[in-house]
Amino acid sequence: MTIRLPILATLLVSTINLATHAQVPVRRFEPVSFSQVTVTDHFWRPKLDKVATATLQACIVQTEQKSGRIRNFEKVQRGKHEKHEGIYYDDSDVYKALEAIAYSLKNRPDAELEKKADEWIDKIAAAQQPDGYLNTYYTLVGLDKRWTDMEKHEDYCAGHLIEAAVAYYNTTGKRKLLDVAIRFADHIDATFRQANRPWVTGHQEIELALMKLYHQTRNDRYLKLADWFLDQRGRGFGKGKIWDDWKNPDYCQDGLPVKAQKEITGHAVRAMYLYTGAADVAATTQDAGYMNAMKTVWEDVVYRNMYITGGIGSSGKNEGFSVDYDLPNESAYCETCASVGMVFWNQRMNLLTGEAKYIDVLERSLYNGALDGLSLSGDRFFYGNPLASSGNNARSEWFGTACCPSNIARLVASLGDYIYGKNDSGIWVNLYIGSNTTLKIGKTDVPLQMETNYPWEGSVRLTVNPARKTPYALRLRIPGWVSNVPVPGDLYRFADESKAAFTIKLNGKPVEYKEENGYAVISRTWQKGDVIELNLPMEVKRVAARKELVAANDRVAIQRGPLVYCVEGADNNGQAWNLLVPDQTTFTTQAYQVLTEPVVAIQANLPVVGPSADGTSVVTEKKTVTAIPYYVWANRGKSPMQVWLPTKAKQVKLVD
Amino acid sequence: MTIRLPILATLLVSTINLATHAQVPVRRFEPVSFSQVTVTDHFWRPKLDKVATATLQACIVQTEQKSGRIRNFEKVQRGKHEKHEGIYYDDSDVYKALEAIAYSLKNRPDAELEKKADEWIDKIAAAQQPDGYLNTYYTLVGLDKRWTDMEKHEDYCAGHLIEAAVAYYNTTGKRKLLDVAIRFADHIDATFRQANRPWVTGHQEIELALMKLYHQTRNDRYLKLADWFLDQRGRGFGKGKIWDDWKNPDYCQDGLPVKAQKEITGHAVRAMYLYTGAADVAATTQDAGYMNAMKTVWEDVVYRNMYITGGIGSSGKNEGFSVDYDLPNESAYCETCASVGMVFWNQRMNLLTGEAKYIDVLERSLYNGALDGLSLSGDRFFYGNPLASSGNNARSEWFGTACCPSNIARLVASLGDYIYGKNDSGIWVNLYIGSNTTLKIGKTDVPLQMETNYPWEGSVRLTVNPARKTPYALRLRIPGWVSNVPVPGDLYRFADESKAAFTIKLNGKPVEYKEENGYAVISRTWQKGDVIELNLPMEVKRVAARKELVAANDRVAIQRGPLVYCVEGADNNGQAWNLLVPDQTTFTTQAYQVLTEPVVAIQANLPVVGPSADGTSVVTEKKTVTAIPYYVWANRGKSPMQVWLPTKAKQVKLVD
Repeated sequence: MTIRLPILATLLVSTINLATHAQVPVRRFEPVSFSQVTVTDHFWRPKLDKVATATLQACIVQTEQKSGRIRNFEKVQRGKHEKHEGIYYDDSDVYKALEAIAYSLKNRPDAELEKKADEWIDKIAAAQQPDGYLNTYYTLVGLDKRWTDMEKHEDYCAGHLIEAAVAYYNTTGKRKLLDVAIRFADHIDATFRQANRPWVTGHQEIELALMKLYHQTRNDRYLKLADWFLDQRGRGFGKGKIWDDWKNPDYCQDGLPVKAQKEITGHAVRAMYLYTGAADVAATTQDAGYMNAMKTVWEDVVYRNMYITGGIGSSGKNEGFSVDYDLPNESAYCETCASVGMVFWNQRMNLLTGEAKYIDVLERSLYNGALDGLSLSGDRFFYGNPLASSGNNARSEWFGTACCPSNIARLVASLGDYIYGKNDSGIWVNLYIGSNTTLKIGKTDVPLQMETNYPWEGSVRLTVNPARKTPYALRLRIPGWVSNVPVPGDLYRFADESKAAFTIKLNGKPVEYKEENGYAVISRTWQKGDVIELNLPMEVKRVAARKELVAANDRVAIQRGPLVYCVEGADNNGQAWNLLVPDQTTFTTQAYQVLTEPVVAIQANLPVVGPSADGTSVVTEKKTVTAIPYYVWANRGKSPMQVWLPTKAKQVKLVD
Repeated sequence: MTIRLPILATLLVSTINLATHAQVPVRRFEPVSFSQVTVTDHFWRPKLDKVATATLQACIVQTEQKSGRIRNFEKVQRGKHEKHEGIYYDDSDVYKALEAIAYSLKNRPDAELEKKADEWIDKIAAAQQPDGYLNTYYTLVGLDKRWTDMEKHEDYCAGHLIEAAVAYYNTTGKRKLLDVAIRFADHIDATFRQANRPWVTGHQEIELALMKLYHQTRNDRYLKLADWFLDQRGRGFGKGKIWDDWKNPDYCQDGLPVKAQKEITGHAVRAMYLYTGAADVAATTQDAGYMNAMKTVWEDVVYRNMYITGGIGSSGKNEGFSVDYDLPNESAYCETCASVGMVFWNQRMNLLTGEAKYIDVLERSLYNGALDGLSLSGDRFFYGNPLASSGNNARSEWFGTACCPSNIARLVASLGDYIYGKNDSGIWVNLYIGSNTTLKIGKTDVPLQMETNYPWEGSVRLTVNPARKTPYALRLRIPGWVSNVPVPGDLYRFADESKAAFTIKLNGKPVEYKEENGYAVISRTWQKGDVIELNLPMEVKRVAARKELVAANDRVAIQRGPLVYCVEGADNNGQAWNLLVPDQTTFTTQAYQVLTEPVVAIQANLPVVGPSADGTSVVTEKKTVTAIPYYVWANRGKSPMQVWLPTKAKQVKLVD
């Protein structure tokens, strides 16, 4: 992005020919819902269980006791004009925790947990006003003030309510919350779209949520409302409301109409939710305008403004984007929620385009920037996810603004949503995660079993068991990191040529396939018991960055498979800023344990600098250095850490 | 300080026996006003001139054009309900600039500048309401809202108006602004004290200002009002107003009544202004309560919470104090205004006790922590004054909250206030600054001339020219740094024994004196042309800190005279974190130039670490390292800097 002065862009819009390069967006395939997928994976299954047993418990304890989000609903129910606790957007934490519970109940049924969810739903339903409005902040502060401040997240909270309601209905079939959500959505539609009352949501979220409601209910009122919300932006309605002469409209992506946007700007989570919603609307309305804008914006993110971890939003000041290539390591903001948003948006882009490059980015954000937000214990969280630490970072129990814990919880619990796609003539395998599902191809049920030890090993075994012989194309995503380009664009590149290639076998023998949009496409008639074996070469690779990315100048990162590695003090005598990775370094892999987590560590014999025994000078010695996957750092106390490692000594700092 | 839970302390007060150890505070001597002193000093005079020619010009440009503080007064005058610009406390910047102009006009008469001041005064006077109220924010926002929010700095702005008015009257004899200030003070007195309406000022300042007004007018209404404001604190009146369950009352020193306070807490500038006002009131009311409390609080500041630069308030979070010994270097907040406040408060403590230790602290804050806030060019400012920098710090042209520029300007311009004291039987020389004054001792005029090249050299020549032979005691402050204790308490100590002692000669011959309260007291009958020569040994000294001050563990600072030194990259190949100062280091001094500023630099041959020529390792070599006075750093672009230098290598960081 570039920094721009706030301008009212309505006039510009008419000059943009939206028809140019129009590519009508229709989903190439449909995602397979978490509710149809059973995750059995060695890597992820324990994480799903940890979310169920630890993360959701933390969310519940915080919601009910410590930060007491649920008390506001109880206060509304009592109707005694009690004081609202916390921040005006705290209702959303309850909804997001509920949504995570909904996904988790599918993964791991739990009567106790479901009872708790039903209890909450009763309280939420009881707090709904007769006209459908539902927001504890304004109900307690004074309903006369509702819908007067675009910044106050009433619609944002509504969006999270809707998402929770759809998820809970999908898992349990219970529609009480869904009915609450529908009434609230109808209230919003009547208040704004039908009343033709301008309203720019201060924090996007309702658009994507309404699209979920639309797909669930097939009531096109919600599609129209989602589209209407998108269309409100960039027309000046937010001036003096969510931005002004002092606060740039780009902060909330309100500087230009969505279809005219070309650069990523402002608050990262707001941006991700916006484009996710825009992609959802585009897929249904087949409006090319959103898609064309988003492709350009996406390139601006991935080519110039994304960390190697898939994290985005480098600046803590605006919780978002600054200028191109400004990706500092130690002060990286990289909010967990922004990485979660990257997963959402890239999934939609993949569905619309059929291109695997979006999943390359999704996978990068998922396994690195997002997963880092959750401790191995499941009950500690990072809000920001820096790429270097002097040793002062620790995950927290909770936050005043507690968006991240329930966001990472709902992402992990809904992992089943991201593995497969399908249409009537084919199956897409996007992520290599051990799982079972049954997909209907045409009229045939195709049970599918995936077994793998990914991301530690590159072999993936897929067994297909169609009820009868069935022709379809099986598309296996060939991750970008298999080639020499770890992510699309040339922000990052591997420093070494790949030495190995991937292989695909069918029932033990090489099989013909064609490569298309980043997938290996195997088109044939499949029969019961067919086994596909994909083998992805798991080389240790050094990554370099474009020279414009100053924070990575004369530095390399280490990647293996989808995992970005880091050096943490906990494995290296408390140090992580004292080593050099010369160009010809040879790496070895090593089975390793980080607390409860079995990982593949990467080791090398490297020049390490440190004080002489008497402390009067500094000496350089070769030592074994151990690197661990980035997502497991900061689980063993405070300790320095670095992702980008220097290739040569430049400045030397003596510190305590 | 220690962190305490907010408690309502009113009940505690009655249990404190204020009579214990009561020492009735009466000023031991009176300060000699800036208006009676002509500063001729080699070190300071150019700085006074720079304030007059550059700093005040910057203040004027900002006040009139860029940040437009004066426009709010013009808007009030036009009476057309225009919108207030900036922040609610911005009036204070106009008043503080005016106050600085007032002092400067004494130092350096300037008809143009005086005309500008008169113009502003006309605008200020025109903005005063018929009942005496004067505040552009509330006048523009709605006078019905005035005096409803203790946090909104109405009384703080009033205080700065009063200070400016008194200063301007003292320099020019013009009383228009003084009359405005009196009317406003009367309005405040009628609104609060006389109406018995509880009011805790959210940002202290009015107390010390009212005491200036009292001394100027001799109207004890202002004394009573100052005392009343002090007495409002710590009684719970501020609860829910300037603090609540979430914001500690200690932030604004409202957790305990002032006389019951024992620990320094909260916002540093608020605290300094409070205790300055309390000392002023105590001196006049002879109330021992304030004095007893302040002595304990002062020890808590100086013994456990003061940087070696005399800076205070280590935490940016609350712009103030955190926990004892928490004095980080790089993240040190050390607001310029807090060091200015240290000068104010310590001057009052010295007047009340006659003890030189307070001037030791004043001098430390003045020459280091405060002076650092002003660039050599006079038109760039530090808000915070860190003790270490990785090279990202630069002084700014101005600030949104612009308290610091005019605060350092008014301090430097009023330097004449801090040099001398006197009573009927003696003269106190507190600071060694070349200057002329005439003091009346009993009925005799005693012209006094001080010549020195302090702080670069330690020799001071005082010529006294009493109109006739006069007996009195001349007290010369012997700075704490001459001994082995650079500041009172044992937070800092010199690592080496002093090798030299100070000497005093009268007319070329040794003279008898006794040491009392940190002064060398020469009691005799003085006659025309008597010359006293004081020689202070200007040794380079290594300073160590108590082990509790973790940020200085295994580190030394360098001090010479009152000046604390630092190593800056600008003098050392761009590096400042790459050197060791072993215990037996020999230092040399060197005449040196930092831009326009002639200084004494300190050099040593030290182990310096750095990359080998090929960048594959780190080597240690002996090199000449140059240290400069702390107050001149950051004048030659961004560059790393350190005050506390490591004595041995511990952790080594390879950075860019």
